[in-house]
Amino acid sequence: MSSLPPPLLELIAALRKLPGIGPRSAERLALHLVQSEAAQVRQLADALVKAVETIVSCERCGALTEQQPCAICADARRDHSLACVVERATDVISIEKAGGYRGLYHVLGGRISPLNGIGPEDLRIGELVKRLAAEPIKEIILALPTDVEGDATGYYLAKLLREKNVAITRIAHGLPAGSGLEFADELTLSRAIEGRRELR
Amino acid sequence: MSSLPPPLLELIAALRKLPGIGPRSAERLALHLVQSEAAQVRQLADALVKAVETIVSCERCGALTEQQPCAICADARRDHSLACVVERATDVISIEKAGGYRGLYHVLGGRISPLNGIGPEDLRIGELVKRLAAEPIKEIILALPTDVEGDATGYYLAKLLREKNVAITRIAHGLPAGSGLEFADELTLSRAIEGRRELR
Repeated sequence: MSSLPPPLLELIAALRKLPGIGPRSAERLALHLVQSEAAQVRQLADALVKAVETIVSCERCGALTEQQPCAICADARRDHSLACVVERATDVISIEKAGGYRGLYHVLGGRISPLNGIGPEDLRIGELVKRLAAEPIKEIILALPTDVEGDATGYYLAKLLREKNVAITRIAHGLPAGSGLEFADELTLSRAIEGRRELR
Repeated sequence: MSSLPPPLLELIAALRKLPGIGPRSAERLALHLVQSEAAQVRQLADALVKAVETIVSCERCGALTEQQPCAICADARRDHSLACVVERATDVISIEKAGGYRGLYHVLGGRISPLNGIGPEDLRIGELVKRLAAEPIKEIILALPTDVEGDATGYYLAKLLREKNVAITRIAHGLPAGSGLEFADELTLSRAIEGRRELR
């Protein structure tokens, strides 16, 4: 490796921190990049900085956004009586791509996981309770992963919100067991939302 | 896709231009990046710009370098009587990683390919002839891909340099047919360099 200039080694190290990029891929990407046109690489660098500086979490629902509140929360044509509870901000994008859902969202930012020291107080559950008081939400759709922690989070929410004047449903078990939302195809996600049922 | 903020879409588009990054990978990387710490993303952006701005081709051998000439050309402990001819600057890195070779390099910048309109005048062949006059090179090792165009380039060079006072060898056929240098493992590359034979 003696022949690799230090800036190239630094770039390889930075690329290796990305998910799904191993040592070989990082090296191949770095070598491609240093031999690309400088303008194109600068464009990528600018896109990186601009994206990380301008994209924040919506204060209301927790989705990724440039503005407060996000375009979904601000859209009067959407059904403000529905709130779909998801684990992560990227799950909002998965459901939006499926295309059938016209309600709002609420991102928890994780799921209850005692083994990892994550309790209800670490999630955006307090924010959800406040939204129920301030917004005309009539139904909460739980769209959480179909694993033990996802189920535990769902049952916790169902129990917590039972005395509130709100229906609690969860999306149909169309998702493969043990899998997260990002691996589901769009039809599966659409059907899962359509076939939601009340949690008893 | 209506819910994706424009800076995120721009980042996904920029990432998709990279080799081996498809639409799904680009989206996953972009979503990971915008949810990463800003400092870490800025570090990646800086590494990108710094690498593309500081790394150039060695004026002598064509390898990637920060300085002129490159560390390999400037290294008096290396064997300056040997020059290994490779297609691309990244091939230098592949051979350096194999570790057994202690001579110099010469990067052609491509191979003769009439179908793609690439002739000898498009490659750094004139520079190689000039180096033979100016440097104490006694042997030229051809380390070109083992396909039709690589072979054609090798025979062209062997014919061109026949009257010069220099031995012309090529690395042993240890490389899998039709494959480039970057896919060979380090042992195969080492053995191929050790088992080089004169081109007749």
